[in-house]
Amino acid sequence: MAVATQSLEELCINSIRFLAIDAVEKAKSGHPGLPMGAAPMAFVLWDRFMRFNPKNPKWFNRDRFVLSAGHGCMLQYALLYLTGYDSVTLDDIKQFRQWESKTPGHPENFVTEGVEVTTGPLGQGIANAVGLAMAEAHLAAKFNKPDHTIVDHYTYVILGDGCQMEGVSGEACSLAGHLGLGKLIALYDDNHISIEGNTNLAFTEDVGKRFEAYGWHVVTVDNTNLDEDTSLEAVHKAIEESKKVTDKPSMIKIRTIIGYGSPNKRDSYSAHGAALGSDEVQATRDFLNWEHPPFVVPDDALAHFRKAVDRGAQAEQEWQTAFDAYKAAYPAEAAEYERTVAGKLPEGWDKVLPTYKPEDKADSTRNHSGKCLNALAGVLPELIGGSADLASSNMTLLKGEKDFQKGQYEGRNLRFGVREHGMGAIANGLLLHGGLIPYCATFLVFADYMRGAIRLSALSEAGVIYVMTHDSVALGEDGPTHQPVETIASLRVIPDLLVMRPADGNETSGAYKVAVESRTRPTLMALSRQNLPNLAGSSIEGTAKGAYILSDDGGTPDIILIGTGGETYLCVDAAEKLRAAGNKVRVVSMPCWELFDLQDAAYRESVLPKAVTKRLAVEAACSFGWGRYLGSEGDSISIDRFGASAPGPVALEKFGYTVDNVVAKAQALLG
Amino acid sequence: MAVATQSLEELCINSIRFLAIDAVEKAKSGHPGLPMGAAPMAFVLWDRFMRFNPKNPKWFNRDRFVLSAGHGCMLQYALLYLTGYDSVTLDDIKQFRQWESKTPGHPENFVTEGVEVTTGPLGQGIANAVGLAMAEAHLAAKFNKPDHTIVDHYTYVILGDGCQMEGVSGEACSLAGHLGLGKLIALYDDNHISIEGNTNLAFTEDVGKRFEAYGWHVVTVDNTNLDEDTSLEAVHKAIEESKKVTDKPSMIKIRTIIGYGSPNKRDSYSAHGAALGSDEVQATRDFLNWEHPPFVVPDDALAHFRKAVDRGAQAEQEWQTAFDAYKAAYPAEAAEYERTVAGKLPEGWDKVLPTYKPEDKADSTRNHSGKCLNALAGVLPELIGGSADLASSNMTLLKGEKDFQKGQYEGRNLRFGVREHGMGAIANGLLLHGGLIPYCATFLVFADYMRGAIRLSALSEAGVIYVMTHDSVALGEDGPTHQPVETIASLRVIPDLLVMRPADGNETSGAYKVAVESRTRPTLMALSRQNLPNLAGSSIEGTAKGAYILSDDGGTPDIILIGTGGETYLCVDAAEKLRAAGNKVRVVSMPCWELFDLQDAAYRESVLPKAVTKRLAVEAACSFGWGRYLGSEGDSISIDRFGASAPGPVALEKFGYTVDNVVAKAQALLG
Repeated sequence: MAVATQSLEELCINSIRFLAIDAVEKAKSGHPGLPMGAAPMAFVLWDRFMRFNPKNPKWFNRDRFVLSAGHGCMLQYALLYLTGYDSVTLDDIKQFRQWESKTPGHPENFVTEGVEVTTGPLGQGIANAVGLAMAEAHLAAKFNKPDHTIVDHYTYVILGDGCQMEGVSGEACSLAGHLGLGKLIALYDDNHISIEGNTNLAFTEDVGKRFEAYGWHVVTVDNTNLDEDTSLEAVHKAIEESKKVTDKPSMIKIRTIIGYGSPNKRDSYSAHGAALGSDEVQATRDFLNWEHPPFVVPDDALAHFRKAVDRGAQAEQEWQTAFDAYKAAYPAEAAEYERTVAGKLPEGWDKVLPTYKPEDKADSTRNHSGKCLNALAGVLPELIGGSADLASSNMTLLKGEKDFQKGQYEGRNLRFGVREHGMGAIANGLLLHGGLIPYCATFLVFADYMRGAIRLSALSEAGVIYVMTHDSVALGEDGPTHQPVETIASLRVIPDLLVMRPADGNETSGAYKVAVESRTRPTLMALSRQNLPNLAGSSIEGTAKGAYILSDDGGTPDIILIGTGGETYLCVDAAEKLRAAGNKVRVVSMPCWELFDLQDAAYRESVLPKAVTKRLAVEAACSFGWGRYLGSEGDSISIDRFGASAPGPVALEKFGYTVDNVVAKAQALLG
Repeated sequence: MAVATQSLEELCINSIRFLAIDAVEKAKSGHPGLPMGAAPMAFVLWDRFMRFNPKNPKWFNRDRFVLSAGHGCMLQYALLYLTGYDSVTLDDIKQFRQWESKTPGHPENFVTEGVEVTTGPLGQGIANAVGLAMAEAHLAAKFNKPDHTIVDHYTYVILGDGCQMEGVSGEACSLAGHLGLGKLIALYDDNHISIEGNTNLAFTEDVGKRFEAYGWHVVTVDNTNLDEDTSLEAVHKAIEESKKVTDKPSMIKIRTIIGYGSPNKRDSYSAHGAALGSDEVQATRDFLNWEHPPFVVPDDALAHFRKAVDRGAQAEQEWQTAFDAYKAAYPAEAAEYERTVAGKLPEGWDKVLPTYKPEDKADSTRNHSGKCLNALAGVLPELIGGSADLASSNMTLLKGEKDFQKGQYEGRNLRFGVREHGMGAIANGLLLHGGLIPYCATFLVFADYMRGAIRLSALSEAGVIYVMTHDSVALGEDGPTHQPVETIASLRVIPDLLVMRPADGNETSGAYKVAVESRTRPTLMALSRQNLPNLAGSSIEGTAKGAYILSDDGGTPDIILIGTGGETYLCVDAAEKLRAAGNKVRVVSMPCWELFDLQDAAYRESVLPKAVTKRLAVEAACSFGWGRYLGSEGDSISIDRFGASAPGPVALEKFGYTVDNVVAKAQALLG
């Protein structure tokens, strides 16, 4: 039933609802249903539990909030405005979903301060939250001292049915249960409605039982009355109880009514993803006794919400006092904390990256990568990561470091299990928490499994390092299901992702130099399973430019051979034969297209002069995209089909990756 | 303890084991551990339960077997050889993992008869199996009559820990539980070992409880003794019990010892993914009292296994008799059964595809797609499909058709829930079962979530139809998380996948003509959310060629404008303006690169003559890959960054998709 008079709390909750309703109505686009149904739980969480400082959204010890059901973003924008963040004003809310507004259609961490992670693709947010909670657990274990607690916050999530159905959330939540992340508390907006209708169309599993099976603490807040709002006290009690369970993450299953307050659209899909329409907006105002015009928040409600400003300032001040004491007692640790939280690298960190001479023993770039990671682990305590159950193949284990496990959160070796998509999303959470440089690993071909997360690394400016080994048909016998051919191209197309395919030891070190410095662009490394010789002329500096001349004969070359990764040495060897036959040959190593494209025109021309149209690219992958460097007269040795099961050297030979074939193709170009 | 004398069953089981051990040893590559541990369960299943005809692997009513843990493929090859399939001989087993052998490193349905689906990427097989079981349920509901049962088989799966950890399996299994697929029986090879070590590193959830939460029937077969082989009778009883549970899928959790029989490598990662080594092979022979040389199967064992040949012939014969009776009683249904099982399309099916004239009302290609699907549903009873909870946005609902639900398996509208990856893998199972043409749908950008399955459609020659709507920034307000920019290119790179981006109604019909006829290549359609005009000159026939001339001025054009999908009409309108200014302009519509590349050189030259170097491509997506059609003098209007939240028309304009900008870019090219 409609309430006749409203308590302050009802005023506050309905303020959230009507900001959402009115913004969606003005934009004629958006999702009012979730904010209307979830406003009570969000109010309880933000008003009574969450610790944050609206005037310093980056205060490091704040509780993290993730709206995993990102389509309900007006809920978050309303809360940011109401609690006093400067990032979202009432004018911003009126600009909901407009070009370059601070209030885009889904929450974007790189646009709106106070938004921790970018959500919208379902399931990502809850998986990010697992990463945020892991980051907190790790940093707390690392920095806190018996008498000094400086890292101590919760990670709260609101997620919906869609997130619960996605596999990525299952992966991450299973791991969260295994790890016993007690400070991760998820509020499940269980509204029984998905886009096609009632969730009983496709989703009748016992979600609570599933989470118990994962090792979570599960609480249920029920409601069977469409006319009755969520009980604030029941939510309050559930959160309170969940905070007391310190050895398990908590899932609070809250039965809500989507579109609560709308007499004709509540509890139905029609409240989900479209403006209510002016008649229904009025009917909702009537039902909820809301006499305020659009975008007007009652003074009492705003004043109550804005108490968050003082509360937040005080919380940060108390923390600062505690930190000052910590700093006095533990100056070295405090300095490290300050450096890593600021995202600064220690002076000279890159000096530990190994360099190689041609006479050094041939090795795989996955092994070089393992050496880089281990060298970096010594100078970068913020480096943390692991593999989706392939550490021994990806060479990602940090020697002498503990595993990150329940009760042993100081460990830096993460064990993700066979959960690639969850891993990627968790890595985004680890990165966006701040204070860490996360890496994660699997076979390159399984980038396909985690592409949803890789895309979000790039979009949300998260400099995650992806260590992807077994990068071509040269991996051999595992066959076409495991052999990438189109994978490298499929990753090069992602905006703002650096795809690096180093040719040897120096270039692998170069790739790590780029990756570690690149804190707002993710880097993905494609690394060989097989051994490769160390090349004369290869360098960290050249690698950082994306492409560079490995060898040249002076003057204008007759032909340029362009190699990447494991096939670069074929170009080097073929060049010798071609030179012996009297040709002027340039060999260009091209570990990273994106970095080369960023160089100035003069440098690019110096490496690939327009005048030299005879160009041959050698890469054990598809030809897609090479046109831009080869022009109309160039050629490539490529694999424009799926691979095949066979020993690696056989596969390479069958697909044309031999010195003789490079020579033959070059000669054909030379005419 | 080692057995002193061996029963016939032990002989059989050890025959499987040693074929696997010896093949891996010879190849010096492969995974002996799973076959060694899972041989007993596989023996019970294949010897006592599975109905199949080795001499006719395609017998339609066979039980389907899926080795979801595909790395254990020697288990399956051994069984195929032992039970008398012609597709795998002893010589083939000796060629394990060699170039062009019938025994590649993971099971490939397109290489080895008897292999139902291609597995290896973990989790896919169990999800395929859900599709196989759905296909069986649907065809049984459709064809069986009270007195005539002609579709009636089980789908059996062996899966491992890796499959259980993958999100894709969780998605598919949650749906399988919802659907109550009683004839799906999965045997979980619960060996507690994954690649990084014991599963307790990352995977301590209660799997049985999780499956109960999904609505599955769960049975456990335990074993705590590393020296004791799996109890055949316990497995037998578990399968028998599971067959009796007809309203739920069954998960039989069988505790096994990976590498059972190897005294020093069993129960450890070292038995998983590498040859045991000659010493350990000998130690295993000693432990299992196996005196036979490599690749020698004891006569008794082979003779016992080969009883499958007569058993299978008899089973098929009995079925044939039943089918003959069915055919006599229900000639029309039998004819439809025979046609669809043979994969033949009915005469004139494509006549129902709608065609349009320029004066017909503008509409979105997603709406055109919906009309095509509904038209086709009338003539193609084998068409079945649905969306990952976006039916009302993807326009995929078949009107007047029931939902496919528990106890209502005759329905053709599938409700996948928000489970894109599971949906794709299920669609592969539906297709590879035979007798159906499945389609599935989501927003184009979420191709990223299901890419692992899309790749396997292409690799395993499964002509699934992917209906992907909201195909550019024109979708508007949902913003960059939902706007594809690199997605189309990322799909074009997949070998053997047809990516179609129709421009209007006729081209959408053309895309469906291609897709329905393309039974061994999957087709992915990128469809617009926004309305588009019907273009003069567009046609089904032109679409089928991938690219064709929409309009031309005769003679050699000064410039060619190339459009795809929603931007083609911009080229048409710009051409008018350019012509008015005295230029000779050709407009090419290019809905499918892959089909165009398949045309002969003369046709390609007739559409894009080499002599015309001034070419402008207009596509609301990244420029990656366009180089091959544009040459070094061409240009494109592209989006080489992420999109942005704004109303669709605003986003299009901001990114340069206006007639004026096409004209300006063309004029710049014309000089």
